[in-house]
Amino acid sequence: MRFDIITVLPALLESPFAHSILQRAQKKGIAEIVVHNLRDYATNKQKSVDDYQYGGGSGMVMSIEPFAACIEKLQAERTYDEIIFMSPDGVTLNQSTANELSIKKNIIILCGHYKGIDQRIRDIFVTREISVGDYVLSGGELPAAIVVDAVVRLIPGVLNDETSALSDSFQGELLDAPVFTRPADWRGHKVPDVLLSGHEAKINEWRHEQAFERTQKRRPDLLD
Amino acid sequence: MRFDIITVLPALLESPFAHSILQRAQKKGIAEIVVHNLRDYATNKQKSVDDYQYGGGSGMVMSIEPFAACIEKLQAERTYDEIIFMSPDGVTLNQSTANELSIKKNIIILCGHYKGIDQRIRDIFVTREISVGDYVLSGGELPAAIVVDAVVRLIPGVLNDETSALSDSFQGELLDAPVFTRPADWRGHKVPDVLLSGHEAKINEWRHEQAFERTQKRRPDLLD
Repeated sequence: MRFDIITVLPALLESPFAHSILQRAQKKGIAEIVVHNLRDYATNKQKSVDDYQYGGGSGMVMSIEPFAACIEKLQAERTYDEIIFMSPDGVTLNQSTANELSIKKNIIILCGHYKGIDQRIRDIFVTREISVGDYVLSGGELPAAIVVDAVVRLIPGVLNDETSALSDSFQGELLDAPVFTRPADWRGHKVPDVLLSGHEAKINEWRHEQAFERTQKRRPDLLD
Repeated sequence: MRFDIITVLPALLESPFAHSILQRAQKKGIAEIVVHNLRDYATNKQKSVDDYQYGGGSGMVMSIEPFAACIEKLQAERTYDEIIFMSPDGVTLNQSTANELSIKKNIIILCGHYKGIDQRIRDIFVTREISVGDYVLSGGELPAAIVVDAVVRLIPGVLNDETSALSDSFQGELLDAPVFTRPADWRGHKVPDVLLSGHEAKINEWRHEQAFERTQKRRPDLLD
């Protein structure tokens, strides 16, 4: 699977893609993540990628031409399944979207900045607009990293323990039960007895109860 | 405002905090972001920060002791308003939570990994559990960066154009209207005439209509 990320701040994405599972996935050849500097595709002398917005108002708008040049160069090299624009206006990312994207082959992600991107980029090129949540960020870079992380970890072979991804919250319908590790007693705060009992059926029952209670209390919407 | 972030992957957070508005906020002395390596607080010989979970099951659980040692060291230095644990089980981040956090002084953020963190850390230390959305990631580092970005940009003096943050999507009740910049005609795709008219009242009316339509179509829940 290949991700091409187009951004004015390629340096911001250096460390997230160089560590943890994203590094591992790239080393194993399972995922390729290429970050493109939008400024390299600026067509004017000033290498500018944005301009004042038509109709007036504060905030700069990212121009259509550099994005178009970069996207068309990539499209000449391979076929893309999706061109995603990270935007608070987009469809909110959830686990089922992540699952769906994890079986695609080539994906372009556009990172917006400033006041937004020229609407024509969205109309002409973008196949899917994704929001990571109802909050405003300074740019689309961290959201792009979130999408890549959520998707790449689902590709078989990326996680060491293949059962881990399947037992995560949101893959089932319940949140996870509480987890505990040593010491069994920390300053008087003890691990629940049942987890120390060695009685597998009771442990499973307790975990299911806890997961259900937590979900009911915190996220009743997930039970609907 | 000060953020202390506790993580097993401090290197992952290097570039997000060294660029864009987070760099600017730190240079201006408006925000201080300190990343702590959890491994420096490991108490055993192996410098391990996780262990098998009680009751069995796949996935390692992060131990209470290193987190407790780091948190207690920080608490001895200053008072913290919040100790936030980034977790898919938490309360979903939204703009109003970001606004609320932006007036706090000192915040600790704990990043989980693997199967989760010992429940006692959550029970004893954590004041608030925040999720950035209903999807599973490989760790709490990107979510922590999301929270810091969403919050720091709201602190007065961080954004160059102070009006920008206020006119964002989610600060009002509507999504943003489409934006356009030069050229007015790109391969036959034209900017709407009204934006070129210079007629401010008509432009404002068009923008409001567009914002309303987009919200109605994409996020009718925001209009309730």
